[in-house]
Amino acid sequence: MGGVYKYTEIVGTSTKSFADAVQEGVKRAAKTLRNLGWFEVVEQRGQIKEGQVAEFQVTIKVGFKLDD
Amino acid sequence: MGGVYKYTEIVGTSTKSFADAVQEGVKRAAKTLRNLGWFEVVEQRGQIKEGQVAEFQVTIKVGFKLDD
Amino acid sequence: MGGVYKYTEIVGTSTKSFADAVQEGVKRAAKTLRNLGWFEVVEQRGQIKEGQVAEFQVTIKVGFKLDD
Amino acid sequence: MGGVYKYTEIVGTSTKSFADAVQEGVKRAAKTLRNLGWFEVVEQRGQIKEGQVAEFQVTIKVGFKLDD
Amino acid sequence: MGGVYKYTEIVGTSTKSFADAVQEGVKRAAKTLRNLGWFEVVEQRGQIKEGQVAEFQVTIKVGFKLDD
Amino acid sequence: MGGVYKYTEIVGTSTKSFADAVQEGVKRAAKTLRNLGWFEVVEQRGQIKEGQVAEFQVTIKVGFKLDD
Amino acid sequence: MGGVYKYTEIVGTSTKSFADAVQEGVKRAAKTLRNLGWFEVVEQRGQIKEGQVAEFQVTIKVGFKLDD
Amino acid sequence: MGGVYKYTEIVGTSTKSFADAVQEGVKRAAKTLRNLGWFEVVEQRGQIKEGQVAEFQVTIKVGFKLDD
Amino acid sequence: MGGVYKYTEIVGTSTKSFADAVQEGVKRAAKTLRNLGWFEVVEQRGQIKEGQVAEFQVTIKVGFKLDD
Amino acid sequence: MGGVYKYTEIVGTSTKSFADAVQEGVKRAAKTLRNLGWFEVVEQRGQIKEGQVAEFQVTIKVGFKLDD
Amino acid sequence: MGGVYKYTEIVGTSTKSFADAVQEGVKRAAKTLRNLGWFEVVEQRGQIKEGQVAEFQVTIKVGFKLDD
Amino acid sequence: MGGVYKYTEIVGTSTKSFADAVQEGVKRAAKTLRNLGWFEVVEQRGQIKEGQVAEFQVTIKVGFKLDD
Repeated sequence: MGGVYKYTEIVGTSTKSFADAVQEGVKRAAKTLRNLGWFEVVEQRGQIKEGQVAEFQVTIKVGFKLDD
Repeated sequence: MGGVYKYTEIVGTSTKSFADAVQEGVKRAAKTLRNLGWFEVVEQRGQIKEGQVAEFQVTIKVGFKLDD
Repeated sequence: MGGVYKYTEIVGTSTKSFADAVQEGVKRAAKTLRNLGWFEVVEQRGQIKEGQVAEFQVTIKVGFKLDD
Repeated sequence: MGGVYKYTEIVGTSTKSFADAVQEGVKRAAKTLRNLGWFEVVEQRGQIKEGQVAEFQVTIKVGFKLDD
Repeated sequence: MGGVYKYTEIVGTSTKSFADAVQEGVKRAAKTLRNLGWFEVVEQRGQIKEGQVAEFQVTIKVGFKLDD
Repeated sequence: MGGVYKYTEIVGTSTKSFADAVQEGVKRAAKTLRNLGWFEVVEQRGQIKEGQVAEFQVTIKVGFKLDD
Repeated sequence: MGGVYKYTEIVGTSTKSFADAVQEGVKRAAKTLRNLGWFEVVEQRGQIKEGQVAEFQVTIKVGFKLDD
Repeated sequence: MGGVYKYTEIVGTSTKSFADAVQEGVKRAAKTLRNLGWFEVVEQRGQIKEGQVAEFQVTIKVGFKLDD
Repeated sequence: MGGVYKYTEIVGTSTKSFADAVQEGVKRAAKTLRNLGWFEVVEQRGQIKEGQVAEFQVTIKVGFKLDD
Repeated sequence: MGGVYKYTEIVGTSTKSFADAVQEGVKRAAKTLRNLGWFEVVEQRGQIKEGQVAEFQVTIKVGFKLDD
Repeated sequence: MGGVYKYTEIVGTSTKSFADAVQEGVKRAAKTLRNLGWFEVVEQRGQIKEGQVAEFQVTIKVGFKLDD
Repeated sequence: MGGVYKYTEIVGTSTKSFADAVQEGVKRAAKTLRNLGWFEVVEQRGQIKEGQVAEFQVTIKVGFKLDD
């Protein structure tokens, strides 16, 4: 890789799937951070309402390169 | 939250995806337990048949509020 | 189960979802190994490009029966 | 110890301290279960409101002896 | 597997061996639960008296199928 | 929950108790971050001086909602 | 820090709180060991009697400097 | 030790005990691998039939020296 | 329990079984320590010779009460 | 310690050693953060090129004191 | 990354340093495997002789791309 | 191995590298303990001063054989 990288830890949410929750989290992080390179799943949870899964919540660590 | 909550640990299964396996597990739990509030993924596994994924199995802990 | 089983650890990738990444990994393993029986998810990561998830990567341990 | 024991996993809450949250959880469990013998802390979390800790939440596994 | 499964967590005890402690726990669980399918060892401990192992204690999670 | 959340990891300290150390950490975080929603305990340590506990140190992850 | 440090692992007990159990453990360790510098919480458990917490038990690793 | 070693991960099974399951796994591995030196227990599980333990399953990592 | 307890961590070995290795470790610890109360299994390994298990090695933490 | 501390998680890289990768990460963090006090190693990985280690990558959590 | 990857787990040894032990392990793996891409450190141990470190032993998982 | 072994847990420090910190810890332990056989790395941390790594700190468990 070369250089130095930093992690930010976020929770993405979605009513559809774990994959979509990750996508939402990554898109939001990209609004304020440049050079996003990869993510790692830390935890998967969700909300239940009226006996159905109402929301998928995925905690991810997102890695991005720092400027020199 | 307030009050006291209890966990039950179950394994949901699905031929489609991890998200669907969670949904199946939650729906079954809701048949006999009231006030289900959230779930946490503990483990993800699955069955293989003839070189293809035949079943997704997700172990989840489901939290629900106890009556006072 | 009976008999002795062996694990092989692989990483499947997909541009669609975690479930699809597992499927890709299992299909590739089935090309060279017989009697695949189950998989266990070890880690979930992915690549980010231009602020979007570009690839889902799932590390799985695949279990298969050894001949006697 | 002798005999067979069972665990139930619960979350106690309190506005005062972690120790009090455990106490609340144990007291509620004792309403429906006999022979409670010990607890083990699994996780400690809490709620924040207006920049102050509003609630301490402690997940505990409670062990109790089963009748023969 | 198909269907939904549930875990119950128990501690079996024995003066002989870890394997026997598991057996004792499983036999007790079978008195009140049907369709027990598998167990997973969570923890192994024991009691010491007069400088000798006096009891083996094994915590196991026991999985069983829920009725549809 | 809805939306995307972010974690910040801090260490609160107190000469009184673990609960107070958490409170100190949360109050400091609230000075520069809005919408703090919950905390999770990561580690509990402390300093010893002259054979007495001189300070309780609690590492917590604090979650807060990001603006859309 | 400089020099070499050693850990001793102990369990402190208290009828009041987790913080007090740590204090009891540290005070006892200080009777026979010099230069105690810090502690790290390893596990938190407790005893239940008549449906109430009867004792808090905290396992800690205590670090102290070895003489050169 | 000197040199380079490799791990293979297998699951041994037995109707008698955990120790026997390990022995079965090691004997099978020795059929196709030379220079086996040690094993490490990774997981202990088992199958239940008619309310009795029907099979002990032990996952082990087996280490062996590679030729130079 | 009451009072303060200390852990010592040892490795017992046996050519017969894991349970016997624990017994050997406990008996040796009892030669120099009084008031041994319980043990907890930390790790299970072993040596392989000529394709057979030659030795079972169990690492245990042994707890004992300290004098007041 | 006194006061409140914050962690930032970074990945340092080096073609020489793990220690040098940590040094690189710390030096870069010091460009934008004041009062850096300590680091903790979270993960060690690296890149391989043409059958040789081409880069050491060390993930560290760096702790620093927050202004009052 | 694209495609499917496989892990092999090995132990490299060196009388000099942890970094050198990794290098030795990687070089040996490259003798029989093509397309090695990265390594992850799993465990660090070593041998002691006459009160000095006599050997550094590093267990690593090495990832490499499988042919399509 | 044969016989019974004991672990002592220490922290070695060095201004040079992780490997040197281990060496320092081992040498100190050898002053008061005989028959040191191996070490296992538990944790790696360090001190930062003026934006540079000022000290490497490695926690290791050292194993040694007990007299019969």
